[in-house]
Amino acid sequence: MRVEDGIFISVDDHVVEPPDMFEGRLPARYADAAPKVIRTDSGDDVWTFDGSQIPNIGLNAVAGRPKEEYGINPTSFEEMRPGCYDIDERVKDMSAGGVLACMCFPSFPSFSGRLFAGCDDKELALAVVRAYNDWHIESWCGTHPGRMIPMALPVLWDPELCADEIHRVAAKGCHSLTFTENPATLGLPSFHDEHWDPMWRALVDEGTILNIHLGSSGQLAVTAPDAPMDVMITLQPMNICMAAADLVWSRIFKEYPDMRVALSEGGTGWIPYFLDRLDRTYDMHHLWTGQDFGDRLPSDVFREHILTCFIADPVGLSLRHEIGIDNICWEQDYPHSDSSWPEAPDELFAMAARHDVSDDDLNKITHENAMRWYRFDPFAQRARERSTVGELRAEVAGHDTSIRSMDQGRHGATSVNLGELAARATA
Amino acid sequence: MRVEDGIFISVDDHVVEPPDMFEGRLPARYADAAPKVIRTDSGDDVWTFDGSQIPNIGLNAVAGRPKEEYGINPTSFEEMRPGCYDIDERVKDMSAGGVLACMCFPSFPSFSGRLFAGCDDKELALAVVRAYNDWHIESWCGTHPGRMIPMALPVLWDPELCADEIHRVAAKGCHSLTFTENPATLGLPSFHDEHWDPMWRALVDEGTILNIHLGSSGQLAVTAPDAPMDVMITLQPMNICMAAADLVWSRIFKEYPDMRVALSEGGTGWIPYFLDRLDRTYDMHHLWTGQDFGDRLPSDVFREHILTCFIADPVGLSLRHEIGIDNICWEQDYPHSDSSWPEAPDELFAMAARHDVSDDDLNKITHENAMRWYRFDPFAQRARERSTVGELRAEVAGHDTSIRSMDQGRHGATSVNLGELAARATA
Repeated sequence: MRVEDGIFISVDDHVVEPPDMFEGRLPARYADAAPKVIRTDSGDDVWTFDGSQIPNIGLNAVAGRPKEEYGINPTSFEEMRPGCYDIDERVKDMSAGGVLACMCFPSFPSFSGRLFAGCDDKELALAVVRAYNDWHIESWCGTHPGRMIPMALPVLWDPELCADEIHRVAAKGCHSLTFTENPATLGLPSFHDEHWDPMWRALVDEGTILNIHLGSSGQLAVTAPDAPMDVMITLQPMNICMAAADLVWSRIFKEYPDMRVALSEGGTGWIPYFLDRLDRTYDMHHLWTGQDFGDRLPSDVFREHILTCFIADPVGLSLRHEIGIDNICWEQDYPHSDSSWPEAPDELFAMAARHDVSDDDLNKITHENAMRWYRFDPFAQRARERSTVGELRAEVAGHDTSIRSMDQGRHGATSVNLGELAARATA
Repeated sequence: MRVEDGIFISVDDHVVEPPDMFEGRLPARYADAAPKVIRTDSGDDVWTFDGSQIPNIGLNAVAGRPKEEYGINPTSFEEMRPGCYDIDERVKDMSAGGVLACMCFPSFPSFSGRLFAGCDDKELALAVVRAYNDWHIESWCGTHPGRMIPMALPVLWDPELCADEIHRVAAKGCHSLTFTENPATLGLPSFHDEHWDPMWRALVDEGTILNIHLGSSGQLAVTAPDAPMDVMITLQPMNICMAAADLVWSRIFKEYPDMRVALSEGGTGWIPYFLDRLDRTYDMHHLWTGQDFGDRLPSDVFREHILTCFIADPVGLSLRHEIGIDNICWEQDYPHSDSSWPEAPDELFAMAARHDVSDDDLNKITHENAMRWYRFDPFAQRARERSTVGELRAEVAGHDTSIRSMDQGRHGATSVNLGELAARATA
């Protein structure tokens, strides 16, 4: 298959929230308290809410992400590529990159929305989460039907309210929820606590998938305060590996057999080793730990419940059948610097050619798995033959895809203190 | 190649120290203060030193190991297989298992000897470390020449004294030192601190390899206090992965180009993904982090300096060329329950057959790499043709290899509190 004939759905991109997103979406009494973009004395645009200021708005503001987080100054909207925050421009950028549809994680509220959970006024916080979700579903995803997989923020501080929100957004067609790799490190009950049961029940009832993104635990894998930054960057996937272990051995999948979880930006090359280790641990230890999966193995449980996602992972591609060809989705990661936009499909096809990936396998990885796991059908809006890389690119021929404004971090960054970063990430 | 014709050297086994090991090896004034085995009221044999009592002597007493550590009662020497602590019996067990030579990690002092580092009387501590090393080299390894690769304990609290000890044991033919995955988590300066330079210099001067064993950081990978034990067991290799990142990005290999480190019991299946992540991190970030490997990549640095080791790792075996066929050593892990003794060679050959491993590759993994990395030549003592699995087994035909006493933990264990374990491990 030529790349022009491929169809690409990305299950991990990012929206930089535009300043007007809450307009008309919050009760009038919250006009002053609503999250707002302000311009600092140094000319940067930052979001403010509940006494917090969230810098780095131009890229993202979440710990656990390499370049975008570290040593990069806040920017203004003018310095950003409009596709970061403007949905019409985003869709043009997607087409120029050959990508049919995307799912976008939040930026300023953090991947799990913990910015809002920290607010003492829980009525305000709930109103803001709902307004955020309404904006995301109606405006960000609703403007160009079939081009965005909607994903909601959770009500992190109350599983019952979160269940309500899961039902509320499902009625609007949203079947994807972002969450954290580890609620325990955010000071909440762990994955093993019954506290979350109302939420799991709502997810299962609505066929909604839980997405845990790399870096969403608020915890960094740090070896020592004086370790070079590169150590922490290399070890980012550690926490998501911990989350996978936590989930497989938890009571969640046993008690909610229809629960589905995506390890967003978790990578795939480590999965076969991890599955082998799961099964070996079970074989050696279940007699005394009391784990019981009946006639199945933990690796079966993993493949039934967990979706793995990658941006560019040659090892994972070569091991796709050891991972499970139905458990792998591709990610574009626009507008972060890990992304190869606008050549991401070309990069994947070149890698696939080196590993003799069949067309069937490629189709699963690039869009079929995403459609099935997220119950998303873009072809209801747009004919399949008009959805290919070649067709999409032709539609926006001439669109400027200069990436200058996306990778300024690469050369403009300065080294920062690791302990400071860790403190900031866990604050 | 038939398994009978294979030659096996294991770079990771364990000695349970016998009660008489310090006899005649410490100055008379330390007679009372020397580490001693006592029998508790419940009939268990435990080591005592400096106010500490180390239980689980029958298996091992080090955090980070699954079955042996968790929920297993201390035992007495009578309940143990004599091969655990008696070198003549050990060599018979090795032959019965078809294994030519082994390298044994310590038990009661912990993998890195931190039990002795905790002693306030540093003269006593130094005398004990030296006595331990003398016993290990002369008695444990010297009784049956060519059957044991000697490995010394470090002087963990003083890099200058440690350098002296490295030179001292090298003069006795010992070119292997056990250490910790992360000195920072033990409250010592990190791998990035110049503090350790005298030690690195001595290692390089003597051609001595540094061994960091899974679980030697004193830190467990714990997701939450109420997580099932299985989570922690699954995640054991996390810390050694952190150590690998720490070392590759540190100044150590840049300033000591002849330094060599083994990731003992670290497994191999995760390495290709890790190498890809190292190189990707370098490509994306070195311009601002300041890392500079000249015309090489971090994966080159890894392969030049780091030896990977596995007990049974089918994923790693299939990816042996992505790891580096010259960087993989086999481990037996006797007498721990992860070991397949006395069928470990048979298990490896069966796995190798499934992955079409050539005889050349097998020879590297089973003994040639170990001989080169550890500068160890068993054939100086014993002809190669008499060193095969078949020949060794024939020599001890009739030797009782009942493993009853090795796996009592499998059924005798009870669940314990994870927080308690974590506290104990980091105490």
